Amino acid sequence: MTYTPPTRELRFILEDVVAMDGLKTTGAYPELSSDLTAAILEEGGKFCAGVLAPLNHSADSYGAKFKDGEVTTAPGFKEAYGQFVEGGWQGLSFDEKDGGMGLPGALGVAFQEMLQSANMAFGLGPMLTMGALEVLTHAGTDEQRKLYLPRLMSGEWSASMNLTEPSAGSDVGALRTMAKPAGDGSWLIEGQKIFITWGEHDCAPNIVHLVLARTPDAPAGTKGLSLFLAPKFLLDENGEPGTRNDARAIGVEHKLGIHASPTCVMEYGGNGGAKGWLIGAEGQGMAMMFIMMNSARLNVGAQGVGIAERAYQQALTYARERTQGRAVGVEDYPAAIIHHPDVRRSLMTMKAKIAAARSICLACAVAADYAVHLDDEDERKKAKAREELLTPLAKTYGSEIGVEVSSLALQVHGGMGYIEETGAAQHFRDARITPIYEGTNGIQAIDLVGRKLNMMGGYPISRLIEEMRLTVDDCAASAKKDLHAIGAHLANAVDTLEVATNWLRDPQREHADVLSAATPYQTIACETVGGYFLAIGAVAARRLIKDGQEVAFAKDRIALARYYAQSILSTIPGKLGDVQLKADLVFKLSNDGLG
Amino acid sequence: MTYTPPTRELRFILEDVVAMDGLKTTGAYPELSSDLTAAILEEGGKFCAGVLAPLNHSADSYGAKFKDGEVTTAPGFKEAYGQFVEGGWQGLSFDEKDGGMGLPGALGVAFQEMLQSANMAFGLGPMLTMGALEVLTHAGTDEQRKLYLPRLMSGEWSASMNLTEPSAGSDVGALRTMAKPAGDGSWLIEGQKIFITWGEHDCAPNIVHLVLARTPDAPAGTKGLSLFLAPKFLLDENGEPGTRNDARAIGVEHKLGIHASPTCVMEYGGNGGAKGWLIGAEGQGMAMMFIMMNSARLNVGAQGVGIAERAYQQALTYARERTQGRAVGVEDYPAAIIHHPDVRRSLMTMKAKIAAARSICLACAVAADYAVHLDDEDERKKAKAREELLTPLAKTYGSEIGVEVSSLALQVHGGMGYIEETGAAQHFRDARITPIYEGTNGIQAIDLVGRKLNMMGGYPISRLIEEMRLTVDDCAASAKKDLHAIGAHLANAVDTLEVATNWLRDPQREHADVLSAATPYQTIACETVGGYFLAIGAVAARRLIKDGQEVAFAKDRIALARYYAQSILSTIPGKLGDVQLKADLVFKLSNDGLG
Repeated sequence: MTYTPPTRELRFILEDVVAMDGLKTTGAYPELSSDLTAAILEEGGKFCAGVLAPLNHSADSYGAKFKDGEVTTAPGFKEAYGQFVEGGWQGLSFDEKDGGMGLPGALGVAFQEMLQSANMAFGLGPMLTMGALEVLTHAGTDEQRKLYLPRLMSGEWSASMNLTEPSAGSDVGALRTMAKPAGDGSWLIEGQKIFITWGEHDCAPNIVHLVLARTPDAPAGTKGLSLFLAPKFLLDENGEPGTRNDARAIGVEHKLGIHASPTCVMEYGGNGGAKGWLIGAEGQGMAMMFIMMNSARLNVGAQGVGIAERAYQQALTYARERTQGRAVGVEDYPAAIIHHPDVRRSLMTMKAKIAAARSICLACAVAADYAVHLDDEDERKKAKAREELLTPLAKTYGSEIGVEVSSLALQVHGGMGYIEETGAAQHFRDARITPIYEGTNGIQAIDLVGRKLNMMGGYPISRLIEEMRLTVDDCAASAKKDLHAIGAHLANAVDTLEVATNWLRDPQREHADVLSAATPYQTIACETVGGYFLAIGAVAARRLIKDGQEVAFAKDRIALARYYAQSILSTIPGKLGDVQLKADLVFKLSNDGLG
Repeated sequence: MTYTPPTRELRFILEDVVAMDGLKTTGAYPELSSDLTAAILEEGGKFCAGVLAPLNHSADSYGAKFKDGEVTTAPGFKEAYGQFVEGGWQGLSFDEKDGGMGLPGALGVAFQEMLQSANMAFGLGPMLTMGALEVLTHAGTDEQRKLYLPRLMSGEWSASMNLTEPSAGSDVGALRTMAKPAGDGSWLIEGQKIFITWGEHDCAPNIVHLVLARTPDAPAGTKGLSLFLAPKFLLDENGEPGTRNDARAIGVEHKLGIHASPTCVMEYGGNGGAKGWLIGAEGQGMAMMFIMMNSARLNVGAQGVGIAERAYQQALTYARERTQGRAVGVEDYPAAIIHHPDVRRSLMTMKAKIAAARSICLACAVAADYAVHLDDEDERKKAKAREELLTPLAKTYGSEIGVEVSSLALQVHGGMGYIEETGAAQHFRDARITPIYEGTNGIQAIDLVGRKLNMMGGYPISRLIEEMRLTVDDCAASAKKDLHAIGAHLANAVDTLEVATNWLRDPQREHADVLSAATPYQTIACETVGGYFLAIGAVAARRLIKDGQEVAFAKDRIALARYYAQSILSTIPGKLGDVQLKADLVFKLSNDGLG
């Protein structure tokens, strides 16, 4: 159950597929170089593999213990968290002026993936702190920044995000937690929040809760929401944790997976109200949430990829070691099961899907970097739109393949996979939350077809389709048969995506039909765009081969893209009927008939 | 977390889709009637829903406790087992001459599905005893039948099947447990077996272990295997449990799911050897195993369907109760989430796939009944071939949709689905073993493409394709638009299946290519055949409507078939490229490149 950071593939995708080095043209990352990228990935990977990965399985068995409002995390977590802070990893992709390392967000996402691979239950803590950092760096007052940013940026303090309530999950507008002015510029918060990741723990001396709440006389729905900062310990005059705030965990959930991540029920108020401070203006709660939402969704995608990678590595190791039966063309009896075509194919599917989803995540991250750093406003907007278009795809495909790959990896183990001791089952359990949180994949699909396809008059999706066709042309122009095949399958998939997109964007289309098509459309979008990035990788690999560089590695990139093209891209044209299935068929069964 | 037995749908499929009543023509079931079928399903369903279902969740939390060689099952299991015995359910589908109820195996499979829906961990005990009953009724000596059959048939004693060893899972031929003649006609068995379901428990006063072992000087591989009967307690002169045999559980596994089913490590011997008796002739171990294998595989398929049904029912209840957001055309705010197209579609997918997989299982069971009872030997052989062809499909599709539906059902719950208390997660955990045991689905696929397609010169698959085309014609002949659409999608799917079959059966085809195509071929076979049975149901429903019988129910059958046709059958032509993906693409990535 060791973990080997996939640093070479990460670097290849960052540099040769999603062109992170192009960011240098913005002037924002003057020191960015291939050597720096490699060094960060190596160092980050070393920490993840050496410190966090060995704790993953034991922490799952231990869980997170709750008693009298306090949470004890798994043995080793506190020390590992200390090392995480020491390494400065929390601030990796934040501006140096805010105390960060000043590296691209894309590199930050690559690190996130390794962090989640190594130990998802642990990784969730820093992931949530990152969300709070996004909000505070963008919208915190000077005082808030002064008081909280340095400690959060270093990771010394952690943060939690408080949205969900028992009757308000996907429909955030329905939430009821109230904040009333305390008269001194602060607010008093009363309400209960559920599913609060790392809402309470023993790894940091203070926890900064960001809480979505309703203000008095605020309008109903999302417009009445505001975001508040309520620390576990109020700060004394020196900015150090002082008086205990009226905010506490009242329980932790017993979950299917991520056992070592304390998922808390939080109670704000009860003894006068939890003291909090407004972030942004009153009524801007949703805008504040959206600042962190894109990055949180992207990070969940990377998390799915991370679990998939870890599960895949374990299956690969097992397939190389476990011997069983005879294999075609293999002398040894019994043969290692990696030689059986069915097992081998399963491994190829896992590896190809991981690479595809990983590419989407990193491409989304690069777009987000451009959206901040490009000079031209129009170009910035376009980059932002690309980021927003890719966000649901990154979140969905990463999380879907997280579940699928961890299931395939478990299956490679046969009966042993079902035994908890083996560790394969933990990945399967852990991965299963990713299609749910930070907006279920159904919500992502609705966001995709309802909002993202129609941004800027449809420009972002049209532009992406155009770019994909350029790669089709690149493949077609190659002298290599493999690239031709990749290009041909990609062309058909892109054509299908275009037809489906136009069908959805048809102004005559009923809204119910659009909603009914959302998930299947999102599936073909994820698969097509994933295949597109693999095709770019194949084209780049061809260049490496011509230059005589890393030929074996480059050939493998082509083989992977070729496999994905025939196994997955080739099925996309056949999925059009499923996308264009109208809502009347979905609602035709009577309500009684469903039961 | 209640369970409502789907008795109406089961009866519809048994009678109108897979034509169980046709078995009456064989003379084997003179008393079989629609009323009897209904009564058995009602009574069986009542026991499952009333006695077993309420124990499912609490038993999962309790697990199975192991101490000093003994297993304590979950609270309520012992009493429930007593009621199971009292109801005579164990012998439902066995001959009256052997002490059974003398009902068709198809009805037995319908009961198995309800049993597994209600409580899979419990249901595994009787399922394993059923396997032993198959072997003993077919191949037991008169004395073995006299001593063991009545007590096993009533369920008073239970049985276990002992195949797997640490280094022999899918490759049974590699197993090492030894049996030596004791000199008195009995044998002494020495060896360790793993993953032994209900190998030890406290619900029955004796456990009859069937153990696959190697005899001295036997040839290597499967030909050297023989099957032995080794009871936990040796019988005294009155046939009652007497001396403890040298066979014991030395531990239970800590598994992902089915926590309340004791999965034992069994040790035979250590104190002189476990006393056992040969079943069948020496060297016939595999033949003996295959007697029970078909029914065991079919029952696992039904088990997958059962878990899917239970998970679906829970998701449906939740979708009706949980309110969230606004839904198109619904006044209530917040609306029950069942009104959201994305959720509704997910429920339709679940229900349609359950009906498809259920039909395959019951069709397989009817074929097995015909294979025993038809007069004409040639017809019996053809029925047997149909059973054998459908067995991998039933096992695979039932188990695959078991995992898929339980995952979709969990997803409908949003964050609540991830909390163990909700119960949705248990189904997801429980279901995950079904694609693994009784031959992994990969093994099923290899059996399908390697053996089943080539039986009788390819007759069974050709005959099935022919029959599916008759249903295409029936649909085309209907005046209803829905049936036309179903027929058109089914026609394309069947054509694709035929092309894929011919590709696989091409004598020039490389063996590695056949093996590499096995799983994707099995997928389209399952989906096509499942759609075929739904189409038969739609045609039958049309007749009901014309006769003015149960019109609402009949319309729903058509709606379900129509949905499945457009959502699933329509995608099958597009999967041909994935099937015809040759092994060279699968093996192209270097061994290093995989890592």
